[in-house]
Amino acid sequence: MALIVQKYGGTSVANPERIKNVAQRVAKFRAQGHQVVVVVSAMSGETNKLIALAKEISPSPDPRELDQVCATGEQVTIGLLSMALKEIGVPARSYTGGQVKVLTDSVFTKARILSIDEGNMRRDLDAGRVVVVAGFQGVDADGNVTTLGRGGSDTSGVALAAALKADECQIYTDVDGVYTTDPRVVPEARKLDAITFEEMLEMASLGSKVLQIRSVEFAGKYKVKLRVLSSFQDEGEGTLITVEEDRNMEQPIISGIAFNRDEAKLTLLGVPDKPGIAYQILGAIADANIDVDMIIQNVGHDDTTDFSFTVNRGDFVKAQGILEKVKVELGARQVTGDHKICKVSAVGVGMRSHPGVASRMFKALADEGINIRMISTSEIKISVVLDEKYLELAVRVLHRTFGLDQPV
Amino acid sequence: MALIVQKYGGTSVANPERIKNVAQRVAKFRAQGHQVVVVVSAMSGETNKLIALAKEISPSPDPRELDQVCATGEQVTIGLLSMALKEIGVPARSYTGGQVKVLTDSVFTKARILSIDEGNMRRDLDAGRVVVVAGFQGVDADGNVTTLGRGGSDTSGVALAAALKADECQIYTDVDGVYTTDPRVVPEARKLDAITFEEMLEMASLGSKVLQIRSVEFAGKYKVKLRVLSSFQDEGEGTLITVEEDRNMEQPIISGIAFNRDEAKLTLLGVPDKPGIAYQILGAIADANIDVDMIIQNVGHDDTTDFSFTVNRGDFVKAQGILEKVKVELGARQVTGDHKICKVSAVGVGMRSHPGVASRMFKALADEGINIRMISTSEIKISVVLDEKYLELAVRVLHRTFGLDQPV
Repeated sequence: MALIVQKYGGTSVANPERIKNVAQRVAKFRAQGHQVVVVVSAMSGETNKLIALAKEISPSPDPRELDQVCATGEQVTIGLLSMALKEIGVPARSYTGGQVKVLTDSVFTKARILSIDEGNMRRDLDAGRVVVVAGFQGVDADGNVTTLGRGGSDTSGVALAAALKADECQIYTDVDGVYTTDPRVVPEARKLDAITFEEMLEMASLGSKVLQIRSVEFAGKYKVKLRVLSSFQDEGEGTLITVEEDRNMEQPIISGIAFNRDEAKLTLLGVPDKPGIAYQILGAIADANIDVDMIIQNVGHDDTTDFSFTVNRGDFVKAQGILEKVKVELGARQVTGDHKICKVSAVGVGMRSHPGVASRMFKALADEGINIRMISTSEIKISVVLDEKYLELAVRVLHRTFGLDQPV
Repeated sequence: MALIVQKYGGTSVANPERIKNVAQRVAKFRAQGHQVVVVVSAMSGETNKLIALAKEISPSPDPRELDQVCATGEQVTIGLLSMALKEIGVPARSYTGGQVKVLTDSVFTKARILSIDEGNMRRDLDAGRVVVVAGFQGVDADGNVTTLGRGGSDTSGVALAAALKADECQIYTDVDGVYTTDPRVVPEARKLDAITFEEMLEMASLGSKVLQIRSVEFAGKYKVKLRVLSSFQDEGEGTLITVEEDRNMEQPIISGIAFNRDEAKLTLLGVPDKPGIAYQILGAIADANIDVDMIIQNVGHDDTTDFSFTVNRGDFVKAQGILEKVKVELGARQVTGDHKICKVSAVGVGMRSHPGVASRMFKALADEGINIRMISTSEIKISVVLDEKYLELAVRVLHRTFGLDQPV
């Protein structure tokens, strides 16, 4: 007998029919003798509907009240799912974040979980009940309703699994696992049986939007065994996200090829090479609330250096305007930029122990005549910036180069 | 400076525009120096939508989970109204029933309020904030969300007013007060400036659906000054519902003419006249969950008696079937019935001190050739059952007979 936390996202509980399906799936696990805690999101579209209502009242709604409103989406789902479970003879009880209670700080709309009281849940589990918890929400020390921010239900699931020391946290979504790359670009893309937390973090932040990144960090920190599964398939083991040592298989060098086409790059040329310039440039960008992704500064020459970074494509024009002012302040030579670029990354913990991965990657791209515009590396990933037109070609070439289309 | 509890129903908060209007009205009272606690219902239609969702999951949804789901309707409204208040510069804070806390028993879907903690509300009021409370809901001793049943928001408003010893509880609705009768039947119907609790109870149960009857009982019990007002008009004092002694005006004999066209009558003829027959007849009807309104048993003769009662027209056929069985069991002679009847009542505390009201009523009806089928009286009302076709005529005649079309 195991204790399993299952999290179902908005599309999995989008209507009464699907909620009944989730109930059947939960019942199946319970019939196998497992204890089950279910975490659910709002029915898909509901949270957006509530936010739209709030925006009709106020262009920037009061955050406490916005949380009061938005938390109702999940509250509806827990009630409906518990009804559905009881309807098929499975004892169940629903809990809001406050009823659990999931104690958070008071940063409304993006609260952080401080602690979870397992008392109520444990009592129900021991009594043979399925516990159904509203994801995405908690309550602060004063009893105010808080929410964890978009996608926070994944984090709720992992946090509950950590608090209950669950044997596994299963995240049900509309894909059946994590793939070596996007199957829409590479039809041969293969579902991974396992991936490490670090790889998952690099994959997620690079655009493979399967799991909320905070939940993966959380799971890594608290050693929660995390599994991504499809709620629309009855079979399949999904992808297990785990610590490196637990991956019981021949370790691949590269686990996946991630990519992001929504990028733009900006360069400040001829920046006087002295301490503090990185802060002066990026401080101005951050002040304008623009997220920066890659940052590259190469060695200088003639007492000047070139400074490049990438931003979301939507922020390109705004960032360019800021750089023009910074150029004058710093006495730099020129601002250049390109918003028709993409980023392609090879991710894998295996590269730590296998030298030559970078050169294999660069050779494969060169053989196809693809020019690399920028390079950035971390411990377990190599990212290149390319002209946007090469995106699909580069992903396919790299997927094949590292043997990702072959069975393990 | 007064402490006022205002309750706004579903049509008053049906959409963001109306919620903004409510915020303006609240702001006006606050600007006059009053402390204001606002109780709101779900936006109109929302509760029905939630119940429909639940019914798709289960034909008879688990009551605890149904309350968990339905309570979200009011939670959305309190958040939106608080946002709207802050948007126009009025400090406000929303509270669910559990946050207040409104402690109830654990009878889900029709819980009764046990106590109200005024601490949080008082602190906010003292800090100059408007307190916005979700009507219709509370929390039991175990922290389960409960609801008070349909129309329970009125009860919430009155209970909060009682707990806070508010100077007045204002119920905003889509009518501007309580009328001498339905203006759709009698265009000369006049708004009453004041009515006693007892009269209001008789009027409400007789079909003038302005206030939930439980809230009137509650207000009477705790001596809460209750006022019904329109949320769609800026002027007007509405109707004050008060104890008899407080009514500062010449007391009318009759305050209003109530009526109900949704009735059917059933009679068991030739029932052996012995102890226990009333119970044997009505017990069988109650067991079938049929509400009985009027009950009439006249003196018997030849050791038998006739027993009549009225039910909702929708229950007529079912009740008839039950009576046929009871007839055999009791050895009664015959079951008769009529589902084309109506009930018309004259209500007024003044009849206690004015003899002859009944005979004036019967004469007025006789003068129009209206045959009375049944009569039932209480301390402050006289009800007659008539053929349905006479309803409008009877109401108009009685309204004029008792001078209700004349200014006080």
